[in-house]
Order: sequence, then C-alpha cells, then structure tokens
Amino acid sequence: MAEHANADARSNPKAPTKATLVDAGLHLMLEKGYHHTGIQEVLQAAGVPKGSFYYYFPSKEAFGREVIAQFAAAYVERLERWLGETTQSPLTRLHRHLDETLTHFERRGCRGGCLIGNLSQELADQSAPFGAQLEAVFADWRERYARLFREAQAVGELRADLDPQQVAEFYLNSFEGAVLRAKVSKSPEPLRLFMTLMFDGVLRGNTAAR
Amino acid sequence: MAEHANADARSNPKAPTKATLVDAGLHLMLEKGYHHTGIQEVLQAAGVPKGSFYYYFPSKEAFGREVIAQFAAAYVERLERWLGETTQSPLTRLHRHLDETLTHFERRGCRGGCLIGNLSQELADQSAPFGAQLEAVFADWRERYARLFREAQAVGELRADLDPQQVAEFYLNSFEGAVLRAKVSKSPEPLRLFMTLMFDGVLRGNTAAR
Repeated sequence: MAEHANADARSNPKAPTKATLVDAGLHLMLEKGYHHTGIQEVLQAAGVPKGSFYYYFPSKEAFGREVIAQFAAAYVERLERWLGETTQSPLTRLHRHLDETLTHFERRGCRGGCLIGNLSQELADQSAPFGAQLEAVFADWRERYARLFREAQAVGELRADLDPQQVAEFYLNSFEGAVLRAKVSKSPEPLRLFMTLMFDGVLRGNTAAR
Repeated sequence: MAEHANADARSNPKAPTKATLVDAGLHLMLEKGYHHTGIQEVLQAAGVPKGSFYYYFPSKEAFGREVIAQFAAAYVERLERWLGETTQSPLTRLHRHLDETLTHFERRGCRGGCLIGNLSQELADQSAPFGAQLEAVFADWRERYARLFREAQAVGELRADLDPQQVAEFYLNSFEGAVLRAKVSKSPEPLRLFMTLMFDGVLRGNTAAR
C-alpha cells in the first residue's frame, strides 16, 4: 500500500508503510495491551506523522484488528515451517517448534507473551468483534494442531485413547496458561514444565515409571 | 474500619465500608481489567462519594492491591473448604471443587474469568510491585495444590511417576489457560475438557484404552 501514501507520507523521504505502524503497534500491545497503547505512542515508536495513521486505519479498532491478523499470520508461518518438516516424526516437529518458541521468548526477556492470549484476557468481555476475531484465530490454530495430532496418532506416536481434536484444544489452552505464567514469573520454567508434562505426561504417556 | 469513616462517609446514613468499594472494584476489574477501571466508576458502582475512596486508599494502586488480596483470600477459602473435606479421597475433593468452579463460572455467563490470571496478563510487564504480588498469589495456590497432590500420591491416586510439585504448577497454569479460553469462547467447554484430560490424561493416567 506504500504507493498510495498520503500527503504526509509523500513529504517524508522514508515513507512509512502500513507494516511499520503495525509492527510498532504489535510490540507495544504485546507489553501494554490494547487499551493502554495510545495511537500517539505508536506514531512515535514508528517515527511517522499522525496523518499516516489515519490514512491506513480509520480507527484504533481497525488498527488493533490488523495487528491481531498480522500476529496470527506470523505465528502460523512459523508453526507451519516446523510442522511441515515431514522428514521428522509429528511429535518431534512439535517439540522442535516449542524449543524455538522458548528460545525466542527467553531472548525477549520473558516479556510480552502471546498477543492472542493477552488481548483475549483484556477484550473478550469488552468487545464482541474483537472476541470473534480472537476466537477465530484460536480455532484456526487448533485445527492445525489437531491435524498434527491425528498424524501422530496414525504413526503410533500419540496415545491411542486420546481424541486428537480434544488434545489440540487442551494443548493450546495449557500452552496459553504456561506463557501467561512465564510472563508473570519472568522465567521460562513454566514453558519448560509444559513441554515435559505435555509430552511425557499426556501425549506419549509414561508407562515406564508406573 | 467503618468506624473511622471520614466526613463524606459520616454524612451518609448508609456509611460505605472498605469492603463495598473492594467488592465493586473486584467486579469491574474482573471484566475490564485494571487500567480500564476508573475510580469514578468504582464509586458509582459502590454508590459512595469520592472522599470515601481516598480515606481508605491512598491511590488506585493501593486499591488494586487490596482487590487482588481479597480475591486471592476468597479463592483460598473456597479451595480449602473443598480440599479440607477429608472424608473423601484427594482427587475426588479436587474434582468436586472444579465442579463448583465450573457451575459458578457458567452462572456468571462465562464472563470475568480469574482475576489473578487477567491482571497478570495486563500488569506483569508494566508494574514490578503488581507482578510480585500476583506471583506470590500463584506461589501460595501452587503450594496448596502440591500438598493435595502429595496426599493423592501417598494413597495411590496420582500416577507414581509424576512430581507433585510439578503437577501442581502444570495443573494451575493449564487451568488458567482453560479459564482464559472459556472466557473468549463464552463457553464452559474448555474447562470441561481441562477436567477430563487433566484427570484421565495426566493425574490418573488412562492405561485401559491403550
């Protein structure tokens, strides 16, 4: 959309793109939430004049929806990169995806967490449109995990007594809880524990020690 | 503390108590979060004049800390009422506590969720004092659950290969994630699924169907 930049943007040799604004909004909203992130602050972080914002986004709500959509798309791209590595077994791919997520989270100083979880907490009771968008993101993620768990069950990696669809929902919800706790305790330990108990306690089961 | 009420409060025949303000704040913060809840709104909901607020609380922060403390204390009271029912087995007690929680959540229209989880999302990266208080609440809850899981393991109810302390942390984090999702989807299903998979998938294990 950069070629449609308005007067403000055209007068700036480094024309701000929609993506610059969305990226700045993403970083701010990850840490401060939706309500507490001001448009002025986004403009400052992105280093762009006010007119550019309203050229791209009719309202803060529209901006928030775009930030959510971008976060969700980036997550799916990362997820599918790992889950699509079909040279490895389904649960190995999942484990490696989690390893990468944990490294990324630690590198960020255990801050931010998951934007979808964060904004769900904040907005689910406040805004039906945001609630519906966040719910749709969760549903999409759940389907991707369910597909992986069905594959894992087909090759005998996932316990046969579990329903892959239910496991996908439980996995995702528990992951959100672990991220939340990792963010409060400023430690990756809740995520490490999630990996251990989810894999050895739930997915594969651990009959050896019983 | 009602006997220390200030001039504003004394002029009101129904002198507001600190508890009335905290209760109003609790309901508002459960749905709207901390930042988005205004003192004016709390006063209106509680039906008390402004002076009363500042008599009891030097700041919004102090008020927020009291709301968190009250929520945590009420939760512990409910939890211990169930966990202390020693005529029943440890995991049965826990299951009944969850049943009650689920009924309570449904009665509220699947709104609100867990104040500690909500405010953690919102404030963990924003305020070190709030972060420390919320972390202490989680740690206290985890200890209570760990005690129960140790007891369950001693009577052979909990899988012998699991570490009760780790299970307590995983249980609590996953529960927070399930509440979050139940709140977004406006359905108790994520909590029901949490109960099923946590009990049959993790705690007791399910060797029958394998």
